[in-house]
Amino acid sequence: MTISPPIDLRSDTVTRPTPAMRAAMLDAEVGDDVYGEDPSVAALEARALALFGGPDSRLTTALFVPTGVMANHIGLRMHAAPGEEVVCDADAHIVAHEDAGLAWHAGVQTRTTLTERGLLTADQLDRLVRPHGPYVVGTKVIELENTHNRGGGSVYPLETLREIRALADERGVKIHLDGARLWNAHVAGGTPLAEYGKIADTLSVCLSKGLGAPVGSILLLAEEQREQARVLRHRLGGGWRQAGMLAAAGLYALEHHIERMAEDHANARLLSEGLRERGLTVSEPETNILLIDAPRGASGVADRAREQGVLIGAMGPRTLRAITHLDVTEKSAATAAQIIADCV
Amino acid sequence: MTISPPIDLRSDTVTRPTPAMRAAMLDAEVGDDVYGEDPSVAALEARALALFGGPDSRLTTALFVPTGVMANHIGLRMHAAPGEEVVCDADAHIVAHEDAGLAWHAGVQTRTTLTERGLLTADQLDRLVRPHGPYVVGTKVIELENTHNRGGGSVYPLETLREIRALADERGVKIHLDGARLWNAHVAGGTPLAEYGKIADTLSVCLSKGLGAPVGSILLLAEEQREQARVLRHRLGGGWRQAGMLAAAGLYALEHHIERMAEDHANARLLSEGLRERGLTVSEPETNILLIDAPRGASGVADRAREQGVLIGAMGPRTLRAITHLDVTEKSAATAAQIIADCV
Amino acid sequence: MTISPPIDLRSDTVTRPTPAMRAAMLDAEVGDDVYGEDPSVAALEARALALFGGPDSRLTTALFVPTGVMANHIGLRMHAAPGEEVVCDADAHIVAHEDAGLAWHAGVQTRTTLTERGLLTADQLDRLVRPHGPYVVGTKVIELENTHNRGGGSVYPLETLREIRALADERGVKIHLDGARLWNAHVAGGTPLAEYGKIADTLSVCLSKGLGAPVGSILLLAEEQREQARVLRHRLGGGWRQAGMLAAAGLYALEHHIERMAEDHANARLLSEGLRERGLTVSEPETNILLIDAPRGASGVADRAREQGVLIGAMGPRTLRAITHLDVTEKSAATAAQIIADCV
Amino acid sequence: MTISPPIDLRSDTVTRPTPAMRAAMLDAEVGDDVYGEDPSVAALEARALALFGGPDSRLTTALFVPTGVMANHIGLRMHAAPGEEVVCDADAHIVAHEDAGLAWHAGVQTRTTLTERGLLTADQLDRLVRPHGPYVVGTKVIELENTHNRGGGSVYPLETLREIRALADERGVKIHLDGARLWNAHVAGGTPLAEYGKIADTLSVCLSKGLGAPVGSILLLAEEQREQARVLRHRLGGGWRQAGMLAAAGLYALEHHIERMAEDHANARLLSEGLRERGLTVSEPETNILLIDAPRGASGVADRAREQGVLIGAMGPRTLRAITHLDVTEKSAATAAQIIADCV
Repeated sequence: MTISPPIDLRSDTVTRPTPAMRAAMLDAEVGDDVYGEDPSVAALEARALALFGGPDSRLTTALFVPTGVMANHIGLRMHAAPGEEVVCDADAHIVAHEDAGLAWHAGVQTRTTLTERGLLTADQLDRLVRPHGPYVVGTKVIELENTHNRGGGSVYPLETLREIRALADERGVKIHLDGARLWNAHVAGGTPLAEYGKIADTLSVCLSKGLGAPVGSILLLAEEQREQARVLRHRLGGGWRQAGMLAAAGLYALEHHIERMAEDHANARLLSEGLRERGLTVSEPETNILLIDAPRGASGVADRAREQGVLIGAMGPRTLRAITHLDVTEKSAATAAQIIADCV
Repeated sequence: MTISPPIDLRSDTVTRPTPAMRAAMLDAEVGDDVYGEDPSVAALEARALALFGGPDSRLTTALFVPTGVMANHIGLRMHAAPGEEVVCDADAHIVAHEDAGLAWHAGVQTRTTLTERGLLTADQLDRLVRPHGPYVVGTKVIELENTHNRGGGSVYPLETLREIRALADERGVKIHLDGARLWNAHVAGGTPLAEYGKIADTLSVCLSKGLGAPVGSILLLAEEQREQARVLRHRLGGGWRQAGMLAAAGLYALEHHIERMAEDHANARLLSEGLRERGLTVSEPETNILLIDAPRGASGVADRAREQGVLIGAMGPRTLRAITHLDVTEKSAATAAQIIADCV
Repeated sequence: MTISPPIDLRSDTVTRPTPAMRAAMLDAEVGDDVYGEDPSVAALEARALALFGGPDSRLTTALFVPTGVMANHIGLRMHAAPGEEVVCDADAHIVAHEDAGLAWHAGVQTRTTLTERGLLTADQLDRLVRPHGPYVVGTKVIELENTHNRGGGSVYPLETLREIRALADERGVKIHLDGARLWNAHVAGGTPLAEYGKIADTLSVCLSKGLGAPVGSILLLAEEQREQARVLRHRLGGGWRQAGMLAAAGLYALEHHIERMAEDHANARLLSEGLRERGLTVSEPETNILLIDAPRGASGVADRAREQGVLIGAMGPRTLRAITHLDVTEKSAATAAQIIADCV
Repeated sequence: MTISPPIDLRSDTVTRPTPAMRAAMLDAEVGDDVYGEDPSVAALEARALALFGGPDSRLTTALFVPTGVMANHIGLRMHAAPGEEVVCDADAHIVAHEDAGLAWHAGVQTRTTLTERGLLTADQLDRLVRPHGPYVVGTKVIELENTHNRGGGSVYPLETLREIRALADERGVKIHLDGARLWNAHVAGGTPLAEYGKIADTLSVCLSKGLGAPVGSILLLAEEQREQARVLRHRLGGGWRQAGMLAAAGLYALEHHIERMAEDHANARLLSEGLRERGLTVSEPETNILLIDAPRGASGVADRAREQGVLIGAMGPRTLRAITHLDVTEKSAATAAQIIADCV
């Protein structure tokens, strides 16, 4: 017996646009975004800025880009030039899953430490952040990931973020926040989005993960960096043209799909409980990500579950990752728990 | 008196999707293209391969990417590693308009020569292409641009392309063809698209210029390079997700918008004649691009024309560039000739 | 009262060639090393290989280069291409003091963790070394520094090195050993030099630190990598010509200055004891490096000590570093202890 | 019959230090040049500055580096950042023989044209030098090579250099002069060295070619760029320590070996005449380099000549290059002419 269509827990990137979102795309006005003339892109960027900008926010403009990888690379390059340094945790998306792009095309050095659940402490950063000296590479920017993907969807406490901001100010370094899943942190922890604008000098958010838009991320940054960021976007091959229809999907998602992520979190807990009841060792899901121990090997479990209609990813030799999202219902979470448990 | 909406001759990138194209997008099936699961992307890539592949073609797979810049960079990196060399003309798009990206992120050296209308000859290449030696940087790939943007939409004669291919074979180097406007070369010169597949080892074509799709280019290459090309795409920030709706627009364009470019070429000639009649010095348009002398300064002309509802670009201190496309009618070409002539 | 010439404890790089070393240089035969024709360079490389090569050694050739920075960069590039990953400790010389060169010109990503005294454990490496996957950056090489500069001249136990080698073999990654001060580890710990050749796939050693030669480092590597390493040396601007006189100095140092480093270690202990007796908190010197607490600020101490004829470096806001070497006698170590203690 | 030692015409880099030069080295005072404390290095840099500095000179400091490759790369990086552009001729040493290092580690784009004898004209530069625009890569620096190696030791007329300087000023771009063999241009053409300081914003000269020193080049630049240049030197692995003995050799060469290059030029003419008399086609030597046609293949000639004790290099499939220098006498030039002629 196989479930069809399969229950896809590999990633929240697999979501498909809803009919309402498609309808919004159909009607979108468009223009050439390389010339800065696409009205739907402008509307999306304005909406994103409204969420993260405002009094005391460091973020005063927004830029729509094809992917989170590009948003992170452009954001970090606003603070660190070739030959300079980014400090982050050793399992950050930017060092694990972005093809070493920062070194490859930006010439930027990453310096990291191992952490618990991907979350850096101010104490660790106190040791890592280093002043520039003659022949000493100084740290230019701290990178934080919230929620943390490989850390199992973990959420930075707002208090920790504020301590890190204070340390950054004291040391004269910037903060880039990889907020691909910041929506989940906001919904799970209750921190208003505008608070993050007071922490981060640049911030990337993704429209095509939990939000369910087909394509795109947004980089929030300071207005005076906008032109340089647009050149970087073009140089990396992100100078797209009539992006307005994609922007319309993103705008729809910002308006309708943020708060509903609470359901994804509930489904992650449901899945987690279902697995624990069946004797599995699983992480305590803070948001929509669950790490599952697979003592006999993760890839075998993934293969067996696929045959029964549940798609799940291996995060390491003996760790599985399951992610809930817009296209995973309460019922399918329950079903998945049973199938996965049978396969582990 | 101002024309509204303005007649936009700045670039063929400004075209907007037609209602029929939008309808095709609305219905497109989508999936996660990073996982290789978007059926509309697959259909677009298959269609492109059908045009350029076939017997004796060097091109056996196609990859959908956000922009022509990215398509060129990935294509050239299939042949040249960091520390290796690309030979091209000194006004090629890859050296003029791609933000020095090849050096910046690929570490690839460009070596060029000045040419007539952007077209390299086999004789020039005989001098430029250099064998590798101890401490001698060898040429790995010849880059050709057809039609040539800064050369005024000039078309490589098929015979020249074949001579260059013979030289490349003799020297053991590859050819990358920047075919952002290859459709125009095909329509103007009658060379079947499949012929280009016998010339080029990698080939980029653009869907969002004359073809009128909103976003995207296609890189054609050899199947065995596909995985490496996908990693490069991801590293550059081009690993988009549900790109299928954009692919559907591209597919529609491939099916309906190639042969109609003959109208754009006719309109370019109309515009050229209208300007000549009024005493201006203009290039002989081979395709949809026209270079216009502006002895009193190009930017002033562009400003004055804009006030009257004609948008036109400056290509140099005393050169204007006008481009016809899907959204420029015969009538607007005639109108534009008069307005531009008044402003020069 | 000021001591003249000053007692220079800033670094063991400040040593000057002895008269006997200069005499060896005067007579050296030379040739063009870019053509591989300098007999003194060849003799130096052969001597270095004799020390680290032999049965079970991974090192089968040696290359003379201008600096340790260049030796490390070339060595690491033998294992990691642009877009690949080096794992090391967060205070390694390659991330602290090499100007982010690995990212800047090699496009190689560094991934690190905080450690005790700069020494990585097999357990930490078990977490850091990561297999390559689709869109997952895999680790290619582990970098170890022995003795560890910022760790206070700390020495890797041979047992730890063997555990790390076993882990590297299991995971299919290479080891580069930054052995700028490996001579000190050898002299202090008694590990035969040839043992390091069984641990490291590439190894850099410095001739101009404790060994007292004026200029140069040696990279030991596998014969089949030699040509590629020579091209990298040339590309980085290290293709020097008649380097034979420098090589002659290095050869003299290898023959006469290794075992005498025991004196430097004894002097470091003497200095350490002198400081402790006067109430200072100092690290336990394993070799020739001493870290000294300066609760009122390191740079002030350095300034005051300089006025009295002792040169000492600041390693952090409240940490001093003192290094003993060929030009520091037992007597000057005792004198320095008193002066430094007065200044702290 | 073989001549021993062979007559080595492969390059002027093969010269060996004379006994007087070695004696100067033996007595040299040294210090740690990374700390800026080597008095002999300081003396060499001061002497070089005295030659090229002075009223109206753009050059106000000098930096001793291991090789000409490093001098060129550092010099060009003073003017062009990653993503910016250098314009030069298509056969420049920096694009032919420096391992694409500018692209590889500096991310700098090169844009070139084919020329006669390697010499650019102001007209060609008028077409090549391009202003920066939105998404247009602007030229930052013109690179000139004087004398030109692959051009056959050709010399820029001072008048041409002044025209190019005027054009550079008008366009707001800088000039880097690769003067590895500028001494030869000075001696052959009579242009005072100080004149070049009025043309070039940065200038590299080599001590180990015609000047006969064993190792090293000097970069002349503006004082305010010195610190940045020192960091680049360190990052590239050129932060050597007690370089003073090499500097002493360079200083000796500057004092004794410049004007004697007239002999090398006379010997090149002698060689050229000897070859012409025997029916060979050779370039007219302006300085110490001679290009010789080898219609039956250059590498075969080089092999046959080597057997008879004459070393000569292949510059292309059917071109030989012969270079005279300090270690080539009038008599050996005459002998070489006969042997080469027999082998062609």
